[in-house]
Amino acid sequence: MPNREYKQTGEKILGDILTPSSIVFFGASNNPMTFGTGQFLNIINEYRRNVYPIHPKEEEIFGVKAYKKVEDTPEDADLAIMVLPTHLVPKFLACCGEKGIKRAIIISAGFKEVGEVDLQNEIISIAKKYGIRFLGPNCIGICNAYENLNTTWIPYFPKKGGISIVSQSGTFACHPFPYFIENGIGIDKSISVGNEADIDIVDCLEYLEDESNTKAIAMYIEGIKRGGKFIEVARRVNKKKPIVVLYVGGTEAGSRAGKSHTSALSGPDHVYDAVFKQCGLIRAYNIEELFDYSLALASQPLPKEGRIGILTDSGGSGAVMADTCERMGLNVPTLSEDTQNEIRSIVPSIATVTNPIDITTDFDVSHFYVEIPEILLKDPSIDGILLYGLFGPSIFKRFFKSAKTEIDGLMPMYLTMLDELLNLCERYRKPVLASSFIGRRDEEVVAYFQDHDVPVYPSPERAAKAMSALVEYSRAKRKEKSDR
Amino acid sequence: MPNREYKQTGEKILGDILTPSSIVFFGASNNPMTFGTGQFLNIINEYRRNVYPIHPKEEEIFGVKAYKKVEDTPEDADLAIMVLPTHLVPKFLACCGEKGIKRAIIISAGFKEVGEVDLQNEIISIAKKYGIRFLGPNCIGICNAYENLNTTWIPYFPKKGGISIVSQSGTFACHPFPYFIENGIGIDKSISVGNEADIDIVDCLEYLEDESNTKAIAMYIEGIKRGGKFIEVARRVNKKKPIVVLYVGGTEAGSRAGKSHTSALSGPDHVYDAVFKQCGLIRAYNIEELFDYSLALASQPLPKEGRIGILTDSGGSGAVMADTCERMGLNVPTLSEDTQNEIRSIVPSIATVTNPIDITTDFDVSHFYVEIPEILLKDPSIDGILLYGLFGPSIFKRFFKSAKTEIDGLMPMYLTMLDELLNLCERYRKPVLASSFIGRRDEEVVAYFQDHDVPVYPSPERAAKAMSALVEYSRAKRKEKSDR
Repeated sequence: MPNREYKQTGEKILGDILTPSSIVFFGASNNPMTFGTGQFLNIINEYRRNVYPIHPKEEEIFGVKAYKKVEDTPEDADLAIMVLPTHLVPKFLACCGEKGIKRAIIISAGFKEVGEVDLQNEIISIAKKYGIRFLGPNCIGICNAYENLNTTWIPYFPKKGGISIVSQSGTFACHPFPYFIENGIGIDKSISVGNEADIDIVDCLEYLEDESNTKAIAMYIEGIKRGGKFIEVARRVNKKKPIVVLYVGGTEAGSRAGKSHTSALSGPDHVYDAVFKQCGLIRAYNIEELFDYSLALASQPLPKEGRIGILTDSGGSGAVMADTCERMGLNVPTLSEDTQNEIRSIVPSIATVTNPIDITTDFDVSHFYVEIPEILLKDPSIDGILLYGLFGPSIFKRFFKSAKTEIDGLMPMYLTMLDELLNLCERYRKPVLASSFIGRRDEEVVAYFQDHDVPVYPSPERAAKAMSALVEYSRAKRKEKSDR
Repeated sequence: MPNREYKQTGEKILGDILTPSSIVFFGASNNPMTFGTGQFLNIINEYRRNVYPIHPKEEEIFGVKAYKKVEDTPEDADLAIMVLPTHLVPKFLACCGEKGIKRAIIISAGFKEVGEVDLQNEIISIAKKYGIRFLGPNCIGICNAYENLNTTWIPYFPKKGGISIVSQSGTFACHPFPYFIENGIGIDKSISVGNEADIDIVDCLEYLEDESNTKAIAMYIEGIKRGGKFIEVARRVNKKKPIVVLYVGGTEAGSRAGKSHTSALSGPDHVYDAVFKQCGLIRAYNIEELFDYSLALASQPLPKEGRIGILTDSGGSGAVMADTCERMGLNVPTLSEDTQNEIRSIVPSIATVTNPIDITTDFDVSHFYVEIPEILLKDPSIDGILLYGLFGPSIFKRFFKSAKTEIDGLMPMYLTMLDELLNLCERYRKPVLASSFIGRRDEEVVAYFQDHDVPVYPSPERAAKAMSALVEYSRAKRKEKSDR
C-alpha cells in the first residue's frame, strides 16, 4: 500500500531529504552506546545547519539544545530522522505531521522485514494523511558528501566525488566509507532505502538522473518491487549516466538472507540478469567490483573500442593485466612498428615495447609518467591505457630511513610530471586506469592520481576489469544509438 | 642446459641462499637512483649479518666498508648477489667461484628472455665449473621474513607468517609487501626464480616441503619447464601443505607478456588446469585470490565439510556472504531449532537467527565476539564460520572527536573478548574467517584478529571465497586419502 496516488517523481522529494536545511532527530541521548546517539553525533560533528534533538528528559545532548517535543522546536524542520523503538514510530511520525514536517528517514527496524506488516501499513497511512514522504523503515539513512551530511552511524566521511549509491542494504550504503577513504574514492550521495515502504529504488534513480554531481550510479539490489517501472527508468537513466548493479538473491541462501533483511522478494539470477542486460546496466558480482566499476565510469572518458595499451615497470603485472583484459573480452594488440620504434628509442634495450610495455629498470620516471603515456594516447589504435607501478618518493624515503640520508625535492619533480600526464588525459580523452600495491597513505603519487580523478586500484587485475566495464558501457551506449 | 647432473635436491641449496650468514653484493653504489643500490640499502637496513659491497672505486657504500674485488673480502661469503650490467655477470661469477662462493642470486636481466641464449649458457657453464648454484638470472631475489633478509628493491618488510611465495615474476615476489603489511598478512619466504637457468620452481617446492614455518605455498606461474617432475613433486608436497597457484599464459596476450618476461613457454589454460587438478592444487584467478586463499590455508584448521555459519551485524553483508558461499559450492544451512533457540535467547527480537545470523542493533558486543561464535563452533552441523562487522573502539573515538568526550578503557574489554574467541577457535578447531571495510591501521580489533592468525579480509565476499578454498583443499585431501 505505498503512497502512489500523489506521487509524481522522486526528484523534489529526495532533494529535500538529501539537502535539508534543518533536521529534527528522534532517538539520540547522552548514552553513547546506542546507534541513535552515534548517528546524531555523526551529523552534528560535520553538518553546519540546525539540528534539533527530541528527548523527553534531557536539556542538552552532547552540547546541542534538546527539545521535549517536536512541537517545541523553533522552526518547521525540513526533515525528521527517527531511530526510535519500533512501537513509538507511528505516534511521533504523526507529531511530525502535525508540526508540518513533510520528509522523514525512518531508521527504526521491526516492520515488514520481521512480519509486522500492519505496523508498516500504519506508518504508511499516517504519512499519507500528513503528506509525509519517507525513506525506510529499516534503513540506515543517507549521506550527502557535498553537504557534509552523514546520517548513518559510520563515522567516516568520504570525499566529494561522482559516485552515487542506491542500496537495499544499509551496510553497503555506509560501511564501505573507510574503504572509500583508503582508496581515494569520492561520492556524491548515498541512499539506503530499507523496506521501501514509500520511496523506492526507482524513485532514487529518477532523482539521481538530473543530479549534476552524480556521474555513475552504484546499486545494491536484493529484489525489485516495481519491475516494469524499474526497466523503463533504469534504461532511460543509464543512457545519461552509467548504472552498475550488484544483485544478490539468485541463490537459495542469498535469497533467504535478503528476505529476512529488507523483505525483498528476489527472483532467479537469470531473470535479473536479463533485465539488467535489457537496460544496458553493468553487472558487478561483488561489492569491490561494484565500486571499482563505478569509480572508472564516474571519472573516465569512454573508450571508442576495447584496444588497450598496458604500461608497467614490471613483467608480472603486465602479464596479469594482459591476461585479464583478454579474459574480459578486450584486446591487447601488438603495437604498430612506428609506435614500438618511438618507445624503443627512449627505453633501455632490455625493455619490452610490444604491448604490454615493460620499461623494467628505466629510472627516468618521466618516460613512465609522461612520454610513453603520450605515445600511447596519440596512437589511434589504442583506446585506453592501463598503468601499473606508481612508485614515487615514498620508496626513497624508506630506503634512506636507516642510512640517515634524505631525498628532498623529489615530490615537486613528480608533481610536474603528474600534471603533464593529467593534461594529456584531458587532451586525448581516453581512459587511464592505474594500479598499485601501495596505498595513498604511503605513496603521495597514488594520492595525487586519486585526488585528480585517475583511479588507482589495489591490484593490476582490478584495473583491467574496471577498464572492461568502461568498454562494456561504451558498447552498450553505441548499441543503444544504432538501435534507435 | 641446466645443472642437472650434480643436482640432488633443491633443499640444502635454497637453504643456503635463504639463510646466508654473509653476503657479497655486486652492483651497489653511492648513487641512490639505481636498483642495485636500493636492494643493497634494503639488505643493510634490516639484516644483522655481514654484507660486503664490491665496488671498483668507493671506500664505503652508505656507511658500509666496500671492497675493490671479491678476493679482498675477509671471509668466503655464503652468497653472492649480482645487480650488474649483463655483460659483467660471467666475469664476476667466475671471481666468486675462485673465491669459493657456492651460491648466487643473479638479478641482472638481459639473458634468454631477450634472446641472449648464449650468454645465459655461458653463466650456466661457469656455475657448473665452480659448483655454484644460483637463482635467476632476471629475478628479483628473495625475502626471508624470519631472518629479516629482503634482497628485493621493495623497502617493506612483511611480518613473519606462514605463507611462502614461489614466483616466476619478481613483481609478485615482492611488490605486494606493502599490501601484506596493510592487511596483516605474514610470510615465511619469498623466492623469485626469474629465468630458472639453474634453480627452478620444482626445486623451490622441494625446499619448502620441509620448511616448518611454511604452512601454505603461493605460486605464480607463467610456464612450467619440468612438467613431469612438477606433477610428481607438487602432488607430494600438496599432501603435506596446501599449494595455491595463479597461472597466467592461457590467453594470447598473457602468453606473449610471459614469454618476453621470463622466457617461459606457456601452454593452453585447460592443460594447466588439468595438471593443477591432478595435483589437488587450489587455483587462484588473480593476485588477490592467490594471497587470500594462501592466508586462510596457512592459518586455519581445515573444515570437515562445507557447511558454513555466517555471523554479522548487518543484513547486506550476510546476504552477499551467503550468496558467495552458495555460488562457490558451500552450504549455508538453516540452523537447527536448538541452535536457533539458543541464539534467539540472547539477541534482540528483530535479529535474524536462521543463518546468516544478523544481530543488527545488539550493542552487547560479547554476543557477537564470544557467545554466538561458541554456539556455532559447538554445533556439529557447522564446519566453519564467517564473521563480518569487526567494530571496536575506533568507532567511538571518531564519534567523540568533536564532542570532546573520550571513551577510555574500551580496548581492554575488547581484548578480553577477543582472547576468549581465540581460545574457542583453538578448542573447537574449526576455521574462522572475518572481514571488515576498516583496515588494521584504523581499527585495533582488526589488527588484533590479524596478529593472532584469524584472517580479516577487506570485503565479505573475499572471506567467503577464502572459506571455499579451505573446503576445496579439505576435500582434495580426503579424496587423496580415499584413493590410496
